[in-house]
Amino acid sequence: MTLLTTPRLRTADSALRDRALAVVPGGVYGHMTVLQQMPPSYPQFYSRGAGARVWDVDDNEYIDFMCAFGPMIAGYANPVIDAAAAAQQVKGDALAGPSRHFVELAELLVDTVAHADWAMFAKNGTDATSIAVVTARAETGRTKLLKARKAYHGANAWFTPNPAGVTAADRADIIEFEYNDLASLEAAVAEAEGDVAAIIVPPFRHDALYDQELATAEFARGVRAIATRIGAAFILDEVRTGFRLDMAGAWEQFGVRPDMTAFSKGIANGYSLAAVVGGQAYKEAAASIYVTGSFWMGGVAMAAAVATLTLLRDTNGIRTMNAAGSAFRTGLQSQAAAHGFGLVQTGPVVMPFMRFDDDAELRQVFAFTDAAVRRGVLLHPWHNMFFSAAHTLDDVATALERTDEAFAETRSLFPL
Amino acid sequence: MTLLTTPRLRTADSALRDRALAVVPGGVYGHMTVLQQMPPSYPQFYSRGAGARVWDVDDNEYIDFMCAFGPMIAGYANPVIDAAAAAQQVKGDALAGPSRHFVELAELLVDTVAHADWAMFAKNGTDATSIAVVTARAETGRTKLLKARKAYHGANAWFTPNPAGVTAADRADIIEFEYNDLASLEAAVAEAEGDVAAIIVPPFRHDALYDQELATAEFARGVRAIATRIGAAFILDEVRTGFRLDMAGAWEQFGVRPDMTAFSKGIANGYSLAAVVGGQAYKEAAASIYVTGSFWMGGVAMAAAVATLTLLRDTNGIRTMNAAGSAFRTGLQSQAAAHGFGLVQTGPVVMPFMRFDDDAELRQVFAFTDAAVRRGVLLHPWHNMFFSAAHTLDDVATALERTDEAFAETRSLFPL
Repeated sequence: MTLLTTPRLRTADSALRDRALAVVPGGVYGHMTVLQQMPPSYPQFYSRGAGARVWDVDDNEYIDFMCAFGPMIAGYANPVIDAAAAAQQVKGDALAGPSRHFVELAELLVDTVAHADWAMFAKNGTDATSIAVVTARAETGRTKLLKARKAYHGANAWFTPNPAGVTAADRADIIEFEYNDLASLEAAVAEAEGDVAAIIVPPFRHDALYDQELATAEFARGVRAIATRIGAAFILDEVRTGFRLDMAGAWEQFGVRPDMTAFSKGIANGYSLAAVVGGQAYKEAAASIYVTGSFWMGGVAMAAAVATLTLLRDTNGIRTMNAAGSAFRTGLQSQAAAHGFGLVQTGPVVMPFMRFDDDAELRQVFAFTDAAVRRGVLLHPWHNMFFSAAHTLDDVATALERTDEAFAETRSLFPL
Repeated sequence: MTLLTTPRLRTADSALRDRALAVVPGGVYGHMTVLQQMPPSYPQFYSRGAGARVWDVDDNEYIDFMCAFGPMIAGYANPVIDAAAAAQQVKGDALAGPSRHFVELAELLVDTVAHADWAMFAKNGTDATSIAVVTARAETGRTKLLKARKAYHGANAWFTPNPAGVTAADRADIIEFEYNDLASLEAAVAEAEGDVAAIIVPPFRHDALYDQELATAEFARGVRAIATRIGAAFILDEVRTGFRLDMAGAWEQFGVRPDMTAFSKGIANGYSLAAVVGGQAYKEAAASIYVTGSFWMGGVAMAAAVATLTLLRDTNGIRTMNAAGSAFRTGLQSQAAAHGFGLVQTGPVVMPFMRFDDDAELRQVFAFTDAAVRRGVLLHPWHNMFFSAAHTLDDVATALERTDEAFAETRSLFPL
């Protein structure tokens, strides 16, 4: 059996890493850094994308299951979306005020998201979650934010998972509970002593490094009921999940609607945009807060968002993602079994997370990811992955041919 | 003398305002809303820009002195910058990691900004000021941030000028002092009792609604000396001023260099980008904090920034802006005198602020701005304005022909 493939060319990538280390703290920072936390073959710098493929700076091609960590939802270089954006770009992006796309996108979101009566736009997912929290505080006149332990809602001082540079005051208004645990949520409510402004939750548990956990219907309905009972805002954080689970809202399956939802990532297929949508009850409060940004009114990303959401809706993009995601999950599971691995895949098939049984130090999953990357399949060993409407069953079939070899190679490194 | 001109066409703008009010809190929010705070003729929605001109959605043309509140610095639809951005856009923006532009832009900033040894990138000016503050706290292990009263450093809960939705904890680590007043800064230092992480200041006082005030050399040198003495970070907030005053840093004129500088707005001529640059002493701390964003590694805005900064440097864009700004200030001042107005113009000529004497309720400046807008000159009655490298002396001469009429009209409304 052929096991180790030749390492792929890494000349340009290595040179850029060295240059980056000289002029950027840590070389590359944030969720995209590969230094010290990813398998050795993982590329750091990329040159281009098309459909469901990306190319690194050494021109190695990958079938991409990261979708830029979510922003790509309808294929890299999607011609319809890029044409809509380019048509506005030649006219201008940041102007002296918003363009017509601002209104058209707000109307489209109100039409698309079941609970939405209004929309506001920003540039980061963190902007969107923060606007929702500030709006909740303005409406309720209360301070405390209840969030699930380990849940990621952004990288500002309220939320960042790393305490460096964070003060006690930054977290003074946050109380944590356990996801999918209503008793724990009730305990957090009690601890707040009537001062709960908002409860924020993701539609399912997608904390990095942990098995994903779908919300139970009981939890979803309970969050809604508790927020209503105590007069707090219920904020659904769909920054990561938006338009991949249900165009109308991730908890429509439970008949549960939040007061506000935060979107970003896939909303404009990679153009920088975030949105908050909300119900009538929070509209006046949302108008009373001061939030703004230098580029927030730019028309290009909004034109791209209108094109993205329209395309996903008209082509049933979510069904396409699910078909590809299901095929990949089933294929990986049977390959793992054939090679004697206990592979644990969790979360929605369009946003899979994988780990190996008895692999607490991630050695097997790192080896497997490394082997897959060297064969042109871009997976992630400890973060959820993403499917897009551009992932075809052919892409999945090709990727599975390569992952079968990657399992074999991994088995050779970890003999039974 | 012809005074009131025919109101310009506002059909499309009015229709969009009505539609926006239905689906967006407040219609338009933030610094670009015109509802209830701007003269009646002011347009709200825009369709395009070219050079130093913008067109509203009714196709009225304006000589633009707002530059999108700063992002436009080298002309709308600048062909060189847009070509650089488009060349990356066809390859992809958000990919699985940064592009080569990430490294090239960091190197260019280190070459351009005198005190910079490293750079990090984000999407909002607020991101940049916040990253600098968190980095300062990580390096010093202290908490307090000293800022000038009324100084605007962003729209997050630490900084927003409007208290709606802001909690006591959000501001618990901030102590204020008076700009250009070292005794006041020393008092703030004393109040912090050894716990100062950072002092943040803009290069000059540009608070909306107030006369602008240049920093004195004594103040600039004093801020640097005090920060050094107490072991705190000195952060210069150049989000608004960056690359309009001095490519190497706004306080180079005083021989004063900060520990970190925040940039955004003009850095990429309208493409969404922010940057923090810093000195070696803060590099390790900057690598230790967790900040990131879904679109922060996108190559398009970085390619645009490389092109923008290169163009400004190679063509001495700041000299061009100053020539236009000086001509406009001189022209306005003599026109105002000829019409019997006491016009007060403050701040650098490239970022002018104007008000009328004895006009506490802004009635005269609103009337003047309204008259100028109806004649195709986009001014602002209570916020600083901006010049770009695309503003020619011909643009200024044409604008001055129209402002002379606007002064005359204003005089007719406020007879001597």
